[in-house]
Amino acid sequence: MIKAILFDISGVLYQDKTPIIGAIDAINQLQCSGLPLRFVTNSSRSTEVMIVSALQKMGFVIDPCQVFTAPGAIKRFLQMKNLRPYCLVHPDLEAEFIDFDQLNPNAVVVTDAAERFDYNRLNTAFQLLLEGAQLIGIGRNRYFKTDGELCLDAGPFIQALEYAAGVDAQIMGKPAAAFFMAVVNSVGCMPKEVLMIGDDAEADVEAALKAGLQACLVQTGKYRKGDESRVLSLGGECSPSVVEVVTPFL
Amino acid sequence: MIKAILFDISGVLYQDKTPIIGAIDAINQLQCSGLPLRFVTNSSRSTEVMIVSALQKMGFVIDPCQVFTAPGAIKRFLQMKNLRPYCLVHPDLEAEFIDFDQLNPNAVVVTDAAERFDYNRLNTAFQLLLEGAQLIGIGRNRYFKTDGELCLDAGPFIQALEYAAGVDAQIMGKPAAAFFMAVVNSVGCMPKEVLMIGDDAEADVEAALKAGLQACLVQTGKYRKGDESRVLSLGGECSPSVVEVVTPFL
Repeated sequence: MIKAILFDISGVLYQDKTPIIGAIDAINQLQCSGLPLRFVTNSSRSTEVMIVSALQKMGFVIDPCQVFTAPGAIKRFLQMKNLRPYCLVHPDLEAEFIDFDQLNPNAVVVTDAAERFDYNRLNTAFQLLLEGAQLIGIGRNRYFKTDGELCLDAGPFIQALEYAAGVDAQIMGKPAAAFFMAVVNSVGCMPKEVLMIGDDAEADVEAALKAGLQACLVQTGKYRKGDESRVLSLGGECSPSVVEVVTPFL
Repeated sequence: MIKAILFDISGVLYQDKTPIIGAIDAINQLQCSGLPLRFVTNSSRSTEVMIVSALQKMGFVIDPCQVFTAPGAIKRFLQMKNLRPYCLVHPDLEAEFIDFDQLNPNAVVVTDAAERFDYNRLNTAFQLLLEGAQLIGIGRNRYFKTDGELCLDAGPFIQALEYAAGVDAQIMGKPAAAFFMAVVNSVGCMPKEVLMIGDDAEADVEAALKAGLQACLVQTGKYRKGDESRVLSLGGECSPSVVEVVTPFL
């Protein structure tokens, strides 16, 4: 029995600023049904406030307390450990880290930094790692889809820094089980009672299954033909879009 | 019995444009001894001609036909396979690839591109790989040393592209056994009769040992304390500098 649903956001609820057909109605009806919903994302080109505001402007009825972002998890971890981060992050995400002491860094934070992924910044991050700074990564996502194109996400750059410096990143967003568990705890269910819906076969579906959740891959967003084969073999499900997945719960 | 010696160049013969103390005399005496010498490098911030010329200007007596570079191996491979490369290479190396048709690429060539490793170029390379282009990498070196600092080499970026696109790069320079074998064949010896001297524990020493050569790590260049432990456990040797290694052969 499913007692709560977790949704990845980009590629599941919308694509290139346009809602997936039927998704707004489906989510808004679901919100009225009383089933606890959570919206979980590794996206890191905007702050949590910007993400909620963009969804609301599209017409999704979403409460900010239902949104769990990987940058939010990073922020809490830095606060808890009292770390001084070197932030390899997107300009629009900088505001989230402005309160941290960033002089003499003892941590390297890597999110989807887009054009900030340049040689000089990556080299600075690498040298800090050699000096003992801790590598904190947003996720292991390989790519995301925007304007019809697949583009490099943070995962490959985190992989590059791990390889160069011979260190292991601590991943704060998906696919880390700890991230899923924090969200599951917020709805007060057992993991197996929670369904995760995402368009990333690894970071959303495989990772959720490994964390003990149920999971479904949608064929929108970054989905590529063949992604479902691994998902199905691991016990996950596959569906054309989020609308078909949630219809039985309305 | 050692019948030929292979030298890595940067960090072994010189460091930051300054020859390692005693190295010029040692190499030049060795050249007179009749023992076949080869100079092998993955460095890709300059053409083969520039590398030879720089060594000669420092005072090393070196014949261009004794030099084997990884970019040279890439060039021969592209010619042999009649490939159209997208070149993610250093500006000073561009001249080496000017004769290739670079429109509508069906191969991605990654060498140490320095500041050219930017998000847009890496993204272009990634998208070509998704379309089926072959990934050709110079080597797996993690870093090199320049101006007293360790800096990211091509290895981490090749790793990032492999991970993002789910492909395996064909490595044309060290640590590929095929690269070592081409050099060994040029001296007409058995691999076990050839000694490789380098400052990179993995790409020079471990890789040469795996290819059946003998190998010695020097403690100059990019050497970091502790590098010798893995080398010694694999049956390699370790020495303070190239001078100590070649003295017995003079």
